[in-house]
Amino acid sequence: MSKYWSPIVSKLKPYVPGEQPRIANLVKLNTNECPYGPSEKVLDAIAAAASSDLRLYPDPLALKLRQAIAVRYGVTAEEVFVGNGSDEVLAHIFAGLLKHDAPLLYPDISYSFYSTYARLFEIDTVEIPLSDRFEIDLADYDRPCGAIILPNPNAPTGIALPLADIERLVASHPDQPVVIDEAYVDFGGQSAAELVSKYENLLVVQTFSKSRALAGLRVGFAIGQRPLIEALERVKDSFNSYPLGRPAQAGAIAAIEDEAWFEDTRAKIIASRDRLTAELTARGFEVLPSSANFVFARHPGHRGETLMKALRERAVLVRHFAKPRISDFLRITIGTDAECARLIEALDEIL
Amino acid sequence: MSKYWSPIVSKLKPYVPGEQPRIANLVKLNTNECPYGPSEKVLDAIAAAASSDLRLYPDPLALKLRQAIAVRYGVTAEEVFVGNGSDEVLAHIFAGLLKHDAPLLYPDISYSFYSTYARLFEIDTVEIPLSDRFEIDLADYDRPCGAIILPNPNAPTGIALPLADIERLVASHPDQPVVIDEAYVDFGGQSAAELVSKYENLLVVQTFSKSRALAGLRVGFAIGQRPLIEALERVKDSFNSYPLGRPAQAGAIAAIEDEAWFEDTRAKIIASRDRLTAELTARGFEVLPSSANFVFARHPGHRGETLMKALRERAVLVRHFAKPRISDFLRITIGTDAECARLIEALDEIL
Repeated sequence: MSKYWSPIVSKLKPYVPGEQPRIANLVKLNTNECPYGPSEKVLDAIAAAASSDLRLYPDPLALKLRQAIAVRYGVTAEEVFVGNGSDEVLAHIFAGLLKHDAPLLYPDISYSFYSTYARLFEIDTVEIPLSDRFEIDLADYDRPCGAIILPNPNAPTGIALPLADIERLVASHPDQPVVIDEAYVDFGGQSAAELVSKYENLLVVQTFSKSRALAGLRVGFAIGQRPLIEALERVKDSFNSYPLGRPAQAGAIAAIEDEAWFEDTRAKIIASRDRLTAELTARGFEVLPSSANFVFARHPGHRGETLMKALRERAVLVRHFAKPRISDFLRITIGTDAECARLIEALDEIL
Repeated sequence: MSKYWSPIVSKLKPYVPGEQPRIANLVKLNTNECPYGPSEKVLDAIAAAASSDLRLYPDPLALKLRQAIAVRYGVTAEEVFVGNGSDEVLAHIFAGLLKHDAPLLYPDISYSFYSTYARLFEIDTVEIPLSDRFEIDLADYDRPCGAIILPNPNAPTGIALPLADIERLVASHPDQPVVIDEAYVDFGGQSAAELVSKYENLLVVQTFSKSRALAGLRVGFAIGQRPLIEALERVKDSFNSYPLGRPAQAGAIAAIEDEAWFEDTRAKIIASRDRLTAELTARGFEVLPSSANFVFARHPGHRGETLMKALRERAVLVRHFAKPRISDFLRITIGTDAECARLIEALDEIL
């Protein structure tokens, strides 16, 4: 606390990302990164952007990138908003669309950045508890509110809602913005992007960090009808006119256009997830049904924190949340099959 | 206006950046970009970052970049904050350090994004008029206030205050944060970074966009004592944990380390500015004394808007501000000598 701080600063509780340690021979299954590098076409595009044109500002509208995303999802470029990672997109969404007189609703067990944004933008919230099976029960969202945000699949549970349920939620709240955060949708969920033309209150958010293997580039986007996108553009143009540099725009365009790499990579990760789920189940773990690039699992005989630390001693990092109800779970990113084998090997030593 | 917008959105007046048109054979002197490409070492570093490591998140703390900046400016890495362009750094500064009960002060003719940020973060402001000679008179800032932000050199005038004046301003407001925005300081101003160890209320902001020729990469930074930097870190970690991607961090490190390229480039731009100033003066322009990579000039016999449009017809872009007191000025970025010659040629046709 300092007399120079704006009053809001002392009220903030910053989000704590998964750690990024520098340990040799590490099996890093704690931040849901893709175990495979991005498409070679993406690397070529970024290398080509390393030119003297970097002296020039990038396109502040990122029009070519928005067009490429629009083609992929069957919308228009005007219905696409891009930002410096989906976290920046979410920040602008909280500022521009989720602050109302009535409270914002989201699940109690969910992406933990939501409560951080709410605090930063001073948004009143109600956290809706997941069911005993760690599922989102949409009946619980049938209450007065100013807006709703849900990850689908949810994190860190990995459990997805069917598209028909999402549509019912959106249709039953015509006066509220409903934001579906699809960071993990490409690993088995159904995107709500196809519903955007039908519902003016629906905004879908995605990221290049997971299924495009570009966590290191920082690109995310949102799809929605013009009034929602315009709110984000107005906030963005009051915050930073040029959020995406030239290498980011070039790399993201190449990524969205390489459908073959995308289909191949997500199929590999889904197959590895099925194998890892079977291996964990065989060792007594309860594994929640995952539609994401991670599994959320607990062992009836071992505390989550103990397992996490024992794995860490064996240079295997997984994510543990010291929170009520989920403190015995581990969130384990799907690695390569070799990485998953090292995890299982380490668990066999520990259990 | 939409029922889905947070109330703040309809109050925003977004900043309008200089246009980025696609005209063949354009002489683009409207957005203060560097006429020379960045250091080859920077391009190599960015190309090297186009690797499979892009699948991994970047260092959220950008520690190596902060260390490189710290070495260059004689401070510690803990006294350096980095962001996605100095515009993002400024946005976090407005949110975290400039919102107080008493108003924020800045010049009436200045970087026009300041009033946009103030509106976004609902900060009460007082704009202090420049003198008749378009200079900042620091005596005018000797009044009750919550904080002060000044560009030095000022934009779009290009006029710099001596370091001794900046020190007097900082010393005479010990209870207020004083932010010196040094986007253009490397072209003839004196940086206040060396005063940071002495004054706990001083924050200095710089960018890689101008003197490092990296407008297309999006990297900016701030230097200050820990309490000020901590406020920015807290806001940043409530907004976006990973503002700088891997290519941006790698390129910026190479840029800050290439002192030879930096000295050579800024010397060339300063020499071109002196020549352009002489050419404009010889044609009857009044040119304000510039310490930046642009000049601010008006002609007694021609309206600013008319000149700007006539130049545009000749594929020469300069910036014009339709604002009281400065509507007859043109802000002309220092280009290569060939670009400056084309500007002069076009002016000789017009005048």
